Amino acid sequence: MSTNTAALRPREDTGLAHRFARSAGSTGAGAQLRTDDFSGWLRDRKRAHRFRVERIPFAELDGWSFKANTGNLTHRSGKFFTVEGLSAHTGTGLVPQWQQPIIRQPEVGILGILAKEFDGVLHFLMQAKMEPGNPNLLQLSPTVQATRSNYTKVHRGADVKYIGYFVHPGRGRVLADVLQSEHGSWFFRKSNRNMIVETDEDVPLDEDFCWLTLGQIGELLRRDNVVNMDARTVLACAPTAYTEADALSSDTQLRSWFTAERSGHDVRAELMPLAQVADWVRDESVIEHVQGRYFRVVAVSVEADNREVGGWSQPLFEPSGIGVAAFVTRRIGGVPHLLAHAKLEGGFLDTVELAPTIQCTPSNYAHRMGPDRPSFLDLVLSADPSRIRYEALHSEEGGRFLKAESRYLFVEADESEAPLVPPPGYAWVTPGQLHSLTQHSHYVNVQARTLLAVLNTGAVTI
Amino acid sequence: MSTNTAALRPREDTGLAHRFARSAGSTGAGAQLRTDDFSGWLRDRKRAHRFRVERIPFAELDGWSFKANTGNLTHRSGKFFTVEGLSAHTGTGLVPQWQQPIIRQPEVGILGILAKEFDGVLHFLMQAKMEPGNPNLLQLSPTVQATRSNYTKVHRGADVKYIGYFVHPGRGRVLADVLQSEHGSWFFRKSNRNMIVETDEDVPLDEDFCWLTLGQIGELLRRDNVVNMDARTVLACAPTAYTEADALSSDTQLRSWFTAERSGHDVRAELMPLAQVADWVRDESVIEHVQGRYFRVVAVSVEADNREVGGWSQPLFEPSGIGVAAFVTRRIGGVPHLLAHAKLEGGFLDTVELAPTIQCTPSNYAHRMGPDRPSFLDLVLSADPSRIRYEALHSEEGGRFLKAESRYLFVEADESEAPLVPPPGYAWVTPGQLHSLTQHSHYVNVQARTLLAVLNTGAVTI
Repeated sequence: MSTNTAALRPREDTGLAHRFARSAGSTGAGAQLRTDDFSGWLRDRKRAHRFRVERIPFAELDGWSFKANTGNLTHRSGKFFTVEGLSAHTGTGLVPQWQQPIIRQPEVGILGILAKEFDGVLHFLMQAKMEPGNPNLLQLSPTVQATRSNYTKVHRGADVKYIGYFVHPGRGRVLADVLQSEHGSWFFRKSNRNMIVETDEDVPLDEDFCWLTLGQIGELLRRDNVVNMDARTVLACAPTAYTEADALSSDTQLRSWFTAERSGHDVRAELMPLAQVADWVRDESVIEHVQGRYFRVVAVSVEADNREVGGWSQPLFEPSGIGVAAFVTRRIGGVPHLLAHAKLEGGFLDTVELAPTIQCTPSNYAHRMGPDRPSFLDLVLSADPSRIRYEALHSEEGGRFLKAESRYLFVEADESEAPLVPPPGYAWVTPGQLHSLTQHSHYVNVQARTLLAVLNTGAVTI
Repeated sequence: MSTNTAALRPREDTGLAHRFARSAGSTGAGAQLRTDDFSGWLRDRKRAHRFRVERIPFAELDGWSFKANTGNLTHRSGKFFTVEGLSAHTGTGLVPQWQQPIIRQPEVGILGILAKEFDGVLHFLMQAKMEPGNPNLLQLSPTVQATRSNYTKVHRGADVKYIGYFVHPGRGRVLADVLQSEHGSWFFRKSNRNMIVETDEDVPLDEDFCWLTLGQIGELLRRDNVVNMDARTVLACAPTAYTEADALSSDTQLRSWFTAERSGHDVRAELMPLAQVADWVRDESVIEHVQGRYFRVVAVSVEADNREVGGWSQPLFEPSGIGVAAFVTRRIGGVPHLLAHAKLEGGFLDTVELAPTIQCTPSNYAHRMGPDRPSFLDLVLSADPSRIRYEALHSEEGGRFLKAESRYLFVEADESEAPLVPPPGYAWVTPGQLHSLTQHSHYVNVQARTLLAVLNTGAVTI
């Protein structure tokens, strides 16, 4: 039997959280850039490239067409993604059953951030990346944001820069690596690999990339539409430290509550032909709900010179209004708590995930009153500014969603508004409890992960 | 804002692992029964009841029939479960695509063990329960083993005893509560809730139940076919302590390896009509593979007097041979390690889960030679007795599977047989690492959980 002790290493790296905390504390300047100079840098990157996105009719999509037998919108390569129909029966909630268009993209992509120490402080290599659906086109994205089609060359375009650090184990040191779900309302069982890899190699710096500290990224998260969704979800999985030893529920109680929520839902969610989806209609340039609610499927053509390919066209989902995603917060016994919602979304792999207290598009509920409106929506919409600890507009993945903006908030509440014993389906959790669950798949949804990134980077203190 | 400190509690109960360790150390006697007297008690329970199970043709099933359009085997109530077809494409492995019959049972059942301290030692309330597929009919099961149909009375039978502790939160103290997958080769995306709930109430003792320590259950796990699968999977989730601080891979590296394994598989597994499944044939009393491999679908009638109903008939899956499920083990730097396999099973909700080093029915591979045989199968089958740290026959869930026995083993190996750098798809993990993953869903498969229960109860030391 081998007794080689050199092979062993500690199961937990207790120094790592401290290194992330130090990086979060560096807000004003990094090794490459002062935070105040970031806007200029991003403007320069925008000037350096030519982008044009315009709406087109479906018939002008290149390589995309509606299948004759199903009406599904597909690419001739069979790759990228398809727009199909979803039939969902949940038996509960404000809408117990429905049909809708949904994006199907079975392959797992990589969202990866490269990390490296400069002057003893962890920096993260962020990319100024254009996505056609971004409100301002150019946002700060992870080092690598690649579908398998990207990096296996279905695009027939250039290599994905820095991809080697994420697909060749052992080239760097993995600090985080977990599959996380994307929007369950728009994607059918989609998940991506969220990775942070540290290197001590010399890294050649491409002109569209910059090294930022966690604190600098936190400063940028206070601005509207700068840090993209892919960057936010990866940062939510960062091994930051939360030190609270006490909470309203023990970790075991919290997992038990979540298990009960997941067991309590009988969800039947199945793909169906897009052409047969009830209450949705298609004309030459849009697929939309008969009452104009939820979202529309549209098509765009894109001209760009700094992507893997110079130009392309594709479908996008365009929400019908600006969303709101907010955690209601309270300090309980001096310890910050967030009110999490076990939210059912038709496209989740497994029934429910933890969502912000409120997550919806308010205009979809403008016609509903009183108990037919989502819980806590009006509390958040009418919150006094003194209660708002954080507020910024962020947009969802610009490669699939067109101007899909939401107001992200932390809103402080009291016992009369958000009692210690919350309604069924809600639970008070500490930031540390929520964060520990992001180390595993299928617990925390993508909107809650955006708000967790705000916490991880120190952009809010609750 | 509330500042109520009384509401807080520690996130982790550090005393709990110690209480489980003390219970695991009590092997010879519990408050109710000496371990030596257990066989007599079980024999008495068997004598007290009348059971008869016999094979019948499908046409004699009461309430079950093959649907005209699909050939699916279903119950007229629409409840319990159905036998349908599965079409699986994995693109990898020894068998990259296949079709087979599979059990569909969407509802989440409860497997619950009630715990209580007697004389300062935790005891667990175990039931002598008859299941028609058990080789010896009567085995030791959890306090509660109930499908939702059971406890919501689809059976139109008696109440499920002690169910209140598991469906009414707050009646006891939850020590474990997690959804776990069942056999991915036989079930389509089935999971059950695995619960341990502690009470300090007086618990009226039904004559088919007995209180045993964890150590006593460990003693019984050394015997063939005494502790049933449902009890084993719950015990795998018990909050026992593993104290190793070091391992061959850090916890982050291990999760990263698992994420890569899960991302690397493109599995398409879909239900299909049973009548159209290729290479399987049906006669009046059996559905079987044309070459007699894998398993057969059969029907039985059951007479009993201590179940929720007195008699019934149902389909069962009957494997074609005795299985083997073994962890190959090594001490690395003095720390025990298990060689886990990221195993793809067609019925898993999410591609792969961690399985024992080898898990298969050897007779299915009798016709295959050399590299076409599963890795490590011959190492385990030909292991010298001095290397076998544990061996027992256990059967799978007797409510669905007929005489589905496997030899469960821990087999010690050396560098020449099981190198520190294992083949792709395998990783060395410590018992503590494997155990920490059972606190979350979809990581550790049911066969690996049986072997973990053997470790948790102290039935083996590696």
